[in-house]
Amino acid sequence: MQRYFVKNEQLNDNKVTIDSEDARHITRVMRMSEGDKVICCNEKGQSALCEIEDISGDEVNLRVVEWLDEAKELPVAVTIANGLPKGDKLELVIQKGTELGASAFIPFMAARSIVKWDSKKGAKKVERWSKIAKEAAEQAHRTKVPEVLEPASLRELVQKSEAYDYKIVAYEEEAKLGEKSNLASVLSNIKQDQSLLVVIGPEGGLSDNEVQSFKENGFVICGFGPRILRTETAPLYVLAAVSYHTELMR
Amino acid sequence: MQRYFVKNEQLNDNKVTIDSEDARHITRVMRMSEGDKVICCNEKGQSALCEIEDISGDEVNLRVVEWLDEAKELPVAVTIANGLPKGDKLELVIQKGTELGASAFIPFMAARSIVKWDSKKGAKKVERWSKIAKEAAEQAHRTKVPEVLEPASLRELVQKSEAYDYKIVAYEEEAKLGEKSNLASVLSNIKQDQSLLVVIGPEGGLSDNEVQSFKENGFVICGFGPRILRTETAPLYVLAAVSYHTELMR
Repeated sequence: MQRYFVKNEQLNDNKVTIDSEDARHITRVMRMSEGDKVICCNEKGQSALCEIEDISGDEVNLRVVEWLDEAKELPVAVTIANGLPKGDKLELVIQKGTELGASAFIPFMAARSIVKWDSKKGAKKVERWSKIAKEAAEQAHRTKVPEVLEPASLRELVQKSEAYDYKIVAYEEEAKLGEKSNLASVLSNIKQDQSLLVVIGPEGGLSDNEVQSFKENGFVICGFGPRILRTETAPLYVLAAVSYHTELMR
Repeated sequence: MQRYFVKNEQLNDNKVTIDSEDARHITRVMRMSEGDKVICCNEKGQSALCEIEDISGDEVNLRVVEWLDEAKELPVAVTIANGLPKGDKLELVIQKGTELGASAFIPFMAARSIVKWDSKKGAKKVERWSKIAKEAAEQAHRTKVPEVLEPASLRELVQKSEAYDYKIVAYEEEAKLGEKSNLASVLSNIKQDQSLLVVIGPEGGLSDNEVQSFKENGFVICGFGPRILRTETAPLYVLAAVSYHTELMR
């Protein structure tokens, strides 16, 4: 069933109002009318089966038929801090990472990021990324839309990292040396509702200085298997591993 | 270090001859000359550190300095049979799936595949997919290039499946019903050097008839977590899960 993400204020007393783009999607793309049903998710990740009561102009009014008890979200909150890559690779990371259950994305302005962040044009880019996350969350039947943050510097990222229960860095030099057990050990220890920050370098990898700085700030250095993964593949690996360990194995 | 895949016959008595495209890559893209070193992998997945002895025209002659003992391949051989998807999604599956360690790819002409296979133009496409696999294998530092097979019908796929130790089908309807443990149970039982065939539906999913047919032929139906993954994301999930379980957890 089609699902839409609504703001808390759109959902009152079991009535939902949907306007603008989502309303046009309901009426023009899905060609729905009174009596049709959709799922609405609020900002708390609660979802409800809703029935269209009436459509007036660009506004769709719905009534909650039933609150659902869906468990679609990863048991742990994973934030992906991806070294700002070239081209549209981050779009792939956000789309696929959302399907795989990421909670948030922080683009990381790494020393070897070739793309330099232009904060003027940047707002539009973050908006575009957020839209990709929203659409992927709908498609994946999630109940929460991952947040896409403004790109962060090393210092900002280290600052933000203090709020996380666990923090790891994917480092290919460790993978080459055969580091195998750190990720499995973190995932064996992490508990329901705890948070995990995963830092992944850009195409050129992380600089020694960056790795040093993460180490000093309590990050665990992890290899993601013996093959060298591209910057846009590593986040998908870790998200699948988290899902496999916390959702399928437990 | 740059690596090249060579045919068994290119590697004799510790001498290697590289010509055509790879030779041009060595001389023009990498701008290498006598004394420079590369890694060559033969068809058995053995790799050797080699030194360039001389370059004449479009032929590069190398000498094996040392045979390497690299463990870059997944401990189990995973074949991905992906329902033939739209556009260039299969290119993504092959590139990322190769990085993540797949042994082979079989495009599957599923009932709901929108793209119809044109066997005339097909040969070119398989050639292109094979090239993507080769380049991704080099980049990921693998010692084997995954094979890309001609698209198979349901009957052909079921026939081929008899050669595998384990065979599973990703089925989103099971994921919706909360099936959680089948993949973990298969990965707990599979042993080193055994083979696993993974069937994944196209965009519209598998038909009831296809699912029935796979069930009757000994496939285990698996959910890949509670979120709905796109046809091109599911293979990446299962490959990461296999790597995590067999390489990082063991």
